Amino acid sequence: MKKSFLSFLFAVAAFQLRAEDGHQLWLRPHATVPVTVVAPASRSVLLATAKQELQQGWQGNAGATVTLTLKKDKAIRYDGYRISPSGVQAVTERGLLYGVFELIRCQQTGQAAQAGVSNPSYEYRLLNHWDNPDGSVERGYAGQSIFWRKDSSFVTTSRDKTLWQEYARANASVGINGAVVNNVNASPRILSAEYLARVKAIADVLRPYGVKTFLAVKFSSPVLLGGLKTADPLDPAVVKWWQAKAKEIYQQIPDFGGFLVKASSEGQPGPQDYGRTHADGANMLADAVRPYGGLVMWRAFVYSPSDKDRAKQAYNEFVPLDGKFRDNVIIQVKNGPVDFQPREPFSPLFGAMKKTSVMPEFQITQEYLGHSIDLAFLSTMWEECLGSDTYQAGPGSTVARVTDGSVYPQKHTAMAGVANTGLDRNWTGQDFGQANWYAFGRLAWNNQLKSAQIADEWLKQTFAGAADQQATASAADWNANFLAPVTQMMLDSREAVVNYSMPLGLHHIMSATHDHYGPGPWWAPPKMRADWTPPYYHQADAQGVGFNRTTTGSNAVSQYHEPLASQLNDPATCPDEYLLWFHHLPWDFKMKSGNTLWNELCAHYDKGVHQVRQFQQTWDQTRPYVDAERFAAVQNKLRAQSGAAVLWKDACLLYFQQFSKLPIPASVEPPMHTLDGVIANDMVRPRPLPRP
Amino acid sequence: MKKSFLSFLFAVAAFQLRAEDGHQLWLRPHATVPVTVVAPASRSVLLATAKQELQQGWQGNAGATVTLTLKKDKAIRYDGYRISPSGVQAVTERGLLYGVFELIRCQQTGQAAQAGVSNPSYEYRLLNHWDNPDGSVERGYAGQSIFWRKDSSFVTTSRDKTLWQEYARANASVGINGAVVNNVNASPRILSAEYLARVKAIADVLRPYGVKTFLAVKFSSPVLLGGLKTADPLDPAVVKWWQAKAKEIYQQIPDFGGFLVKASSEGQPGPQDYGRTHADGANMLADAVRPYGGLVMWRAFVYSPSDKDRAKQAYNEFVPLDGKFRDNVIIQVKNGPVDFQPREPFSPLFGAMKKTSVMPEFQITQEYLGHSIDLAFLSTMWEECLGSDTYQAGPGSTVARVTDGSVYPQKHTAMAGVANTGLDRNWTGQDFGQANWYAFGRLAWNNQLKSAQIADEWLKQTFAGAADQQATASAADWNANFLAPVTQMMLDSREAVVNYSMPLGLHHIMSATHDHYGPGPWWAPPKMRADWTPPYYHQADAQGVGFNRTTTGSNAVSQYHEPLASQLNDPATCPDEYLLWFHHLPWDFKMKSGNTLWNELCAHYDKGVHQVRQFQQTWDQTRPYVDAERFAAVQNKLRAQSGAAVLWKDACLLYFQQFSKLPIPASVEPPMHTLDGVIANDMVRPRPLPRP
Repeated sequence: MKKSFLSFLFAVAAFQLRAEDGHQLWLRPHATVPVTVVAPASRSVLLATAKQELQQGWQGNAGATVTLTLKKDKAIRYDGYRISPSGVQAVTERGLLYGVFELIRCQQTGQAAQAGVSNPSYEYRLLNHWDNPDGSVERGYAGQSIFWRKDSSFVTTSRDKTLWQEYARANASVGINGAVVNNVNASPRILSAEYLARVKAIADVLRPYGVKTFLAVKFSSPVLLGGLKTADPLDPAVVKWWQAKAKEIYQQIPDFGGFLVKASSEGQPGPQDYGRTHADGANMLADAVRPYGGLVMWRAFVYSPSDKDRAKQAYNEFVPLDGKFRDNVIIQVKNGPVDFQPREPFSPLFGAMKKTSVMPEFQITQEYLGHSIDLAFLSTMWEECLGSDTYQAGPGSTVARVTDGSVYPQKHTAMAGVANTGLDRNWTGQDFGQANWYAFGRLAWNNQLKSAQIADEWLKQTFAGAADQQATASAADWNANFLAPVTQMMLDSREAVVNYSMPLGLHHIMSATHDHYGPGPWWAPPKMRADWTPPYYHQADAQGVGFNRTTTGSNAVSQYHEPLASQLNDPATCPDEYLLWFHHLPWDFKMKSGNTLWNELCAHYDKGVHQVRQFQQTWDQTRPYVDAERFAAVQNKLRAQSGAAVLWKDACLLYFQQFSKLPIPASVEPPMHTLDGVIANDMVRPRPLPRP
Repeated sequence: MKKSFLSFLFAVAAFQLRAEDGHQLWLRPHATVPVTVVAPASRSVLLATAKQELQQGWQGNAGATVTLTLKKDKAIRYDGYRISPSGVQAVTERGLLYGVFELIRCQQTGQAAQAGVSNPSYEYRLLNHWDNPDGSVERGYAGQSIFWRKDSSFVTTSRDKTLWQEYARANASVGINGAVVNNVNASPRILSAEYLARVKAIADVLRPYGVKTFLAVKFSSPVLLGGLKTADPLDPAVVKWWQAKAKEIYQQIPDFGGFLVKASSEGQPGPQDYGRTHADGANMLADAVRPYGGLVMWRAFVYSPSDKDRAKQAYNEFVPLDGKFRDNVIIQVKNGPVDFQPREPFSPLFGAMKKTSVMPEFQITQEYLGHSIDLAFLSTMWEECLGSDTYQAGPGSTVARVTDGSVYPQKHTAMAGVANTGLDRNWTGQDFGQANWYAFGRLAWNNQLKSAQIADEWLKQTFAGAADQQATASAADWNANFLAPVTQMMLDSREAVVNYSMPLGLHHIMSATHDHYGPGPWWAPPKMRADWTPPYYHQADAQGVGFNRTTTGSNAVSQYHEPLASQLNDPATCPDEYLLWFHHLPWDFKMKSGNTLWNELCAHYDKGVHQVRQFQQTWDQTRPYVDAERFAAVQNKLRAQSGAAVLWKDACLLYFQQFSKLPIPASVEPPMHTLDGVIANDMVRPRPLPRP
């Protein structure tokens, strides 16, 4: 079933008829050849979808026959599939669909489809949409919500349906099988009859692509929506209210996935308001959806404003509850212990809850990594987290393995990604943001995948044959001058963001007034809770910089398992990447490189700036291989990112220099901002940033 | 009388007691030794000033006797002087004062005072203050006026007097002998009794330093202030009004210098309002001040909104009037034909008016060269203009020689500079702005001086011995590590501004909304007069860029004398510096370098950016040699300039790229702004820029 990538490339180039505006994602139309599909009688629309995808996507041997077979197979788990020379075999129709997408992906990327079984690492592979009922998207940088509109009339239009179908198909193509369609900071309205009708309409469109619909719920909904006097999870009336609500939902959406809950966190109501535990709250909801096979995902993103180290708090609250949750509850844990920073050590909760299902939550939308302006391929960040060894069950207890059921007998496994989609024509604002959506799906399917492969796959599907001048490039030329340099750019891109915004483990020093875009190490208004201000995190003073989380400080290191705890505790063995996360060190601290800490900081910031300029040069060279629209859009975004990188560098170095009193080394490009200037600019609301 | 610079350096370092805030300009206090001064009986305060300066500034041989002698000497012209081993000889007391300052300057800079005569190139060496009666300063970037206050009570305070005295002394030290103390866009109020009393107070303080006071007057003052129905210069009542006003002034200020007039220019009233000529207007005023020895400086900065090439208009209006002006009228001509751009060819009026006194007007304040933010040593620009050959009386008819009386028998000679002073503690905002005040005075005294010498003199007087750590540097060290690199930075600085803001003869493409700071090639609001908008000047289109002033275009070249006219008319012989001033050329025009025009433009912009970064590196290395306050102030300004340079480069290249459709070469640093972004930023009023 393999066809050479060379022939594919020209086939695509020849087929290319419509404008490339990014809307087709990695599923751009391409030339196909006839194929005969043999399939069992369809039990659902899913199988029809699989057949259709095969017929409209086949690029293998012309006139080939592909057999889709449903049968029991102990080697196949969840929605896995088996590829054989004759076709695809699976236990579920969803499995057949994923097998079909795998066949087509291999054909498109010039890979041989591996014969044998492919099982997903996680049972649930979910997008979390922080979409509000008014159509806005929290931390969304690609336009309004694809699900909700300010207009409350809620007529589901054909445009809605088309968009949702395209969305569902894109998810299915990478194995995403669930979507939480509203914000974790949930409005109680979402559970009203009016909104549930819209949820049903969404679910009906997502279903043929195997995407289950979930809702985020507000814990106080029984009070706010139901008129009860309490939302106490142990109050019978509350229990009854949720049971009735679950029944109401499942009557309309029989395959409804379940609830996602952010409770007792950042001002959200929760069981602690009534003296109950997270377990009390989660279990009550779990019981309500259990009759229908529903799931409750309970977020561990909790921290109180009074504690001395926010990074320790989720662990402190949840580890004592280990084993107290129903088996249809999963604790959803952000990758790091603070909040989706460009680099964090993994959350110490991973592996520490041994009798509870735990799932990683990644952020696809680039809240702290440059919104939809900056190019940052996040796959490397997630790969780094998944590959981190927790040592909780001995060496090799990676975050991947302690969450996917390999180490602990979790009843359910899942991975969530906070979506980056919006109504922008290209879905994600920055064209390369699509790669993060893609990468999330691929890693949720296979948490051992390498980012280089993911980038390679995505680039081939997304850009091959997209030149305005058709078929001018040979495959070898394209590989050498587009694929190789752009892959490298993607693989370097997240580290560039780390370099220019928060090197050496610095974190949470972004601008608050600019919605977390750009630098703000100075930001600390009077009366603001300290753990929302950058100085709480960087702790810069005349002596040095960094958060002391060692045994002499907050002792957050002790939440990690040995030998990691000791390694992190000692600046001599702590990796540079996490140095200032765990240590407050003098400005003249001698780094492993031989540099002082100050000079090393300067060098990292400068390197980040130059990396972005290199990305610009790389992208500029791709002009012959990319359609004009996407070329210009990405070029423009990179320009803005380049300016942002300089601003980060200048602002942070000039700010920290107030404490270090040390000169910026001559090897570093001199600042082109003044500290006064950048602070003054940070104190006003920005003008809207340019949109594609 | 020579003392080694080495010993001087340490003397200064040892003496250094007070904070260096720049207020002392190039006249910082220094260790002195006793000197005996022999002088004639004083006829005026001037001689007392000269004796005092000698006694408080002497660094020659201890106990030396210096004789100041007043006597006739045919070799001495105007306020010139003769230096001899015994002292200073002059025809006027002012001459003695200048000779004294020369002696001290030589001692301070380690030069041997040249025995022999030094005559000023120009009789009048004038600052023009564009200071308004309300205390604001048009094109002033160093705070409010030193002469005027919003507070109309006009009590002359001791602080006023101290400041004016410091100001007058600084002028005298470089030979400036006149000051027009109010804006050429003059308020009629300046001639009211109330204001004239203030003018008298100013004149009384300036007089002891040999600085004459002048006023700019509004041509319609007889109407606006005098209540007449007309300001027609041939109307007897008008003539009488001006005669009376002159008398009133001279009664209070017997040595009053005269009037500066901007008439029939940019909306200012003038003789043309009454169908009269510039000569009619100027002569009427000249007659009014003639009985008192007064002068009228009549500006040639005129242009109508309707003509096709603004650069031609002053010539067209004034050349036909050659020979029609009274001999106490001088036509004041800006260095270039447009308006103080970072580079202009010289005004074709220089040398073309052979029977009229003509004086050059330079702009010391950096209206188009970065306000008081950017470091731009303007001496090189003025040297370039003064050295330009007009060919009007054969080869060697430089602008210097056709204005200083060498070529034409002018009754009066003068040079004016638009001042850059304000209430800022360091007078000029940017510390290096002081060098432009200094250079103007030095060039007005000797229009053959080289900028390298001027920079050397100014740096030695302004920075030697200013290190916080006293006397740590040897003179050789200081010369090698401060004087040499900083001199080079100064000498390169104006060309850097040209490179990043208007290379290859581009001009007048600055931002209108940001008061001429930063780029604005797009600025052209509907109904705006075309010759105030950048597109009128750059003429960029798909074919090319530049203003065709050749014989096939506006034919402005023909205002220049042969062989210059022919040289400028041909792109093959036109110097690159003026190429787009005179030619509209295709984007792929082959430059002398072999580059295309587009690539050459890109390279110039990029070079400008890198030059500023080099200045930053240069300055950063001077930290051991400069007091902390001025070091930080200049460092901060250079940072802002560095950002401004990038903005100029990005904005202009991205703007012009819309027409050229050509890529920015890979050798050029990629833009870090988007065109949309910079245009959006240009469309709002800026927040106030940081002040020292």
